[in-house]
Parts: sequence; C-alpha cells; structure tokens
Amino acid sequence: MQRGLGGEQVEGRQSVRELLLAGRRKTLEVIFSSGLDDAPILDDIIDLADENKVPLREISRGKFDSTARTESSQGVIAMAQPMPEVELDDLAKAASGIAPFLLVVDGVTDPGNLGALLRSAECAGVSGVLLPRHRAAHLSPTVTKAAAGAIEHLAMAVVGGLPAALSRLTDLGVWVIGLDGEAPASLFDLTLAAEPVALVMGSEGKGLSRLVAQRCDTLVSIPLRGSMGSLNVSAAGTLACYEVARRRV
Amino acid sequence: MQRGLGGEQVEGRQSVRELLLAGRRKTLEVIFSSGLDDAPILDDIIDLADENKVPLREISRGKFDSTARTESSQGVIAMAQPMPEVELDDLAKAASGIAPFLLVVDGVTDPGNLGALLRSAECAGVSGVLLPRHRAAHLSPTVTKAAAGAIEHLAMAVVGGLPAALSRLTDLGVWVIGLDGEAPASLFDLTLAAEPVALVMGSEGKGLSRLVAQRCDTLVSIPLRGSMGSLNVSAAGTLACYEVARRRV
Repeated sequence: MQRGLGGEQVEGRQSVRELLLAGRRKTLEVIFSSGLDDAPILDDIIDLADENKVPLREISRGKFDSTARTESSQGVIAMAQPMPEVELDDLAKAASGIAPFLLVVDGVTDPGNLGALLRSAECAGVSGVLLPRHRAAHLSPTVTKAAAGAIEHLAMAVVGGLPAALSRLTDLGVWVIGLDGEAPASLFDLTLAAEPVALVMGSEGKGLSRLVAQRCDTLVSIPLRGSMGSLNVSAAGTLACYEVARRRV
Repeated sequence: MQRGLGGEQVEGRQSVRELLLAGRRKTLEVIFSSGLDDAPILDDIIDLADENKVPLREISRGKFDSTARTESSQGVIAMAQPMPEVELDDLAKAASGIAPFLLVVDGVTDPGNLGALLRSAECAGVSGVLLPRHRAAHLSPTVTKAAAGAIEHLAMAVVGGLPAALSRLTDLGVWVIGLDGEAPASLFDLTLAAEPVALVMGSEGKGLSRLVAQRCDTLVSIPLRGSMGSLNVSAAGTLACYEVARRRV
C-alpha cells in the first residue's frame, strides 16, 4: 500500500531515449506528435522501440498537446511502468567495490529543481537517491523532463520519515552531510575521501528541516562571493555532488 | 541604435526585492495582485519602494495574470528601466584590485537555463557577463525570474560578434577558458590562480560554436561519472564559476 515514485509519463526526446536505453522498466508505448521534422534522436528512439517491441503511435498535434503535461515534450511522450523502488538498506551497500554515494532530498518542491538535481547527481556518479514520501515533488512529467533521463539510471528509495532513515544510514556506516546555508563550515573544506557518503539537500526556501539537520554528522555551506543570499537548490546540489565525486578519483 | 539587454519587466518576489535593493536602474512601478497573504518579503518590497518613491499599484487577480509573462510571478511584478550596458573594455578592468572574472554566454537559448546560470555566476563572484547580440536569450521575464535578482548585481556587455570580443579580451590580458564536453582536459585540473579569467559556456545542444572555440586559450570538460552524456548547461556553468572562485581565495 505504498505510494510509489511515479514516473509513468516520460516527456522529451532525451528522456524517452534514456528510458529505452536503460531498459530498467517496461515502456508500454511511445507517442509522437504528427508533423515532426527528421532528427537523429528520433531515429534512435524508433530503433530502440523496435528492438524492444514497444508500440509506436503517431497522433495529431492537437491530441498530442492535450496528452502532454509539460511544455517541453518536443513531440515525444512515452508511457512506462512506474519507477521501481529499492530498499533503503540496499542503497547503503557498496556496489562493484565502490562505496555508496547517496543523495537525500528533503522537501525540494519545485519539479524543475528536483529534475535538474537528479540529472547532476547522475552525472557526478551518485549511486542512489532517497526521497521522503510526503515532503518532496515526486517523479512528475516535469521532473522527468528536467532530469533528461537521469532517473532511469539512479536507484531510488522512498521513506516515510527522513530523520529515521538518516539514523539508519549512520548505523550502516554512511557519513551524512547536510547542506545548510547558515553552517560556518565550507563544503570545500570537507575532508572527504572514498567513504560511504549521503548528501542531504533541503527545500528551496527553508533549507533542511530541524529534525533532519540534527541527524546529519556534518553541516556545510557553500561560500557566496556576491550580493545574493543563496544559490538555487539544484546549483548547490550540483556543487555538493561534484565535491564528493572529485575527491573519489 | 543598439538592441539593449531588456529586463524591463521583473517578476517574482526575490527578483523585485533585489531590483529595489540594488537600485542600479530606476523602478517605474511595482504591481501587486490583489488577495496576497502577508509575507515578510512583501513588507520588504513595500518599504523599499516607499524609500525610493516608487509607485505601488494593486490590480485584480485576472488583470495581474494577463500582465504576467511567467507562471511564477508570485503576485509581484515591477516595471523598470532596461538593464544598463557596459563596454567590453570596462568589463576587462580590475575593480577594487580584484582581477576581472567574466562569464561569456555563447548561444544559451533556454531562458530558465540562462537565468539559473546568471544566479550561480553572481554567487560565485563573477564580475561581468558578456552576451552576444543575436545568439542568446535576452533578459526576458523568465530569465529575470530564474536569476532571482542576480542580474541587478552583474555588469553586462552585449557584443555583435563573440569571436572578435574574445580576441579583444585576450589582448587585454584575460585568460579565455571554454567549456567543451569533448575536451580531454578536465575543468578540475586547471592551474588557476587570481589571474583575469573569462569562462565561455556554449549552447545546450551544440556546445561552443567553432569560431568561439578557436578563440579560447584552453578548452576543458567536466568529468561524467554516470551513464548520461552531458550536464545541464547551467549546472556545468555553476561548477566552472565555482572552480574559478575557490582558486581565488
């Protein structure tokens, strides 16, 4: 009786290609708008769909627009099985001898921000993502589009309460690092190596919730050199994920 | 007879507050939607407008929605003079003894990406931005909103041709670094210190144009550790701007 991750409606060319390429969940159908100009990525999508015996359907522009739930579907939508969920304890296990590198999302509500954050995380080598059941945006078409297919390559767990989940990660030997604009320590001064790590990102306006911040082993901020009071949450997450990535080489 | 930077219509609470706080260009009017709940940031905006003798106007929700040009104006729009332009040579001058740190935008067309990039740039301490007259998104309400007020604190120049402008920067002693997904050298291996620097970001799909890439002193890429082929351009720009920033301490 869990509310799942969602992600059944995938919009945009790159997202649909990654869905088919990754092949981790079944694609039920790919829908094209009529009147699209030729493009290599459309050929890729058609070839991948054929290979995987996924039905293709072309519908009129008007019908397509009423099916699309983002404004940037680029004439291509896929319907797929929902994103599979993994267990928290499995996220915390090493894979192929590499220590887990997790991203924990505490209440990021803007779907564009969540999608962008997931894309950067995948590029930085994040191995798993932890989302709270209630406080974050789920994998809506807007999230999926902004993630540009990254969700197809990320292991994701959904938990009822983040504070308890973070305690569990600590028990499993994962170092929990929270991003907090008020923290005196800098992200860039972390003494990081190849240990298991979870990065916790708070919501756009309010940052980390109090209980979540209390469960972090370390809180760090990103130095600001201009006049503005904060970075966008996905920009901050990009920097944090890459900070872990570059220390792991 | 130049087409300017635009930026006359500023939407969103943070963007309007920064417009009034920076005070670099005249705000003609602040428009509120009727029926907004109280919020500290709205009080800030009203106080700042009063201090600067900027007229306030409340209009009906329906009228407001037809004036707004983004979907995230949060009930507040300001009308202002266009963004002032500065000369390229002035961008390349040291200010307060600090070497210039420039961001050059080569054909970023998505307004959300451009705005997010400008916000990160300001946070990283970028001193000036160079935009091409024809190939980039200008300061539309969507750019302005995504930048969350960052444009009010950045010096900006608009040039007819980027290749010639980059040559000029080189003549003026600025080191020109291009981000290029195909470059073998890593951003993180740059030997950067406090020298004058210009970072050049290419468009979302195609990267740097050929002539622009040829005028760069160095091309670097950002390592990808997952399955995806590229970072979002504003995520890549965030990493690049902060790479310069952290070496300058």
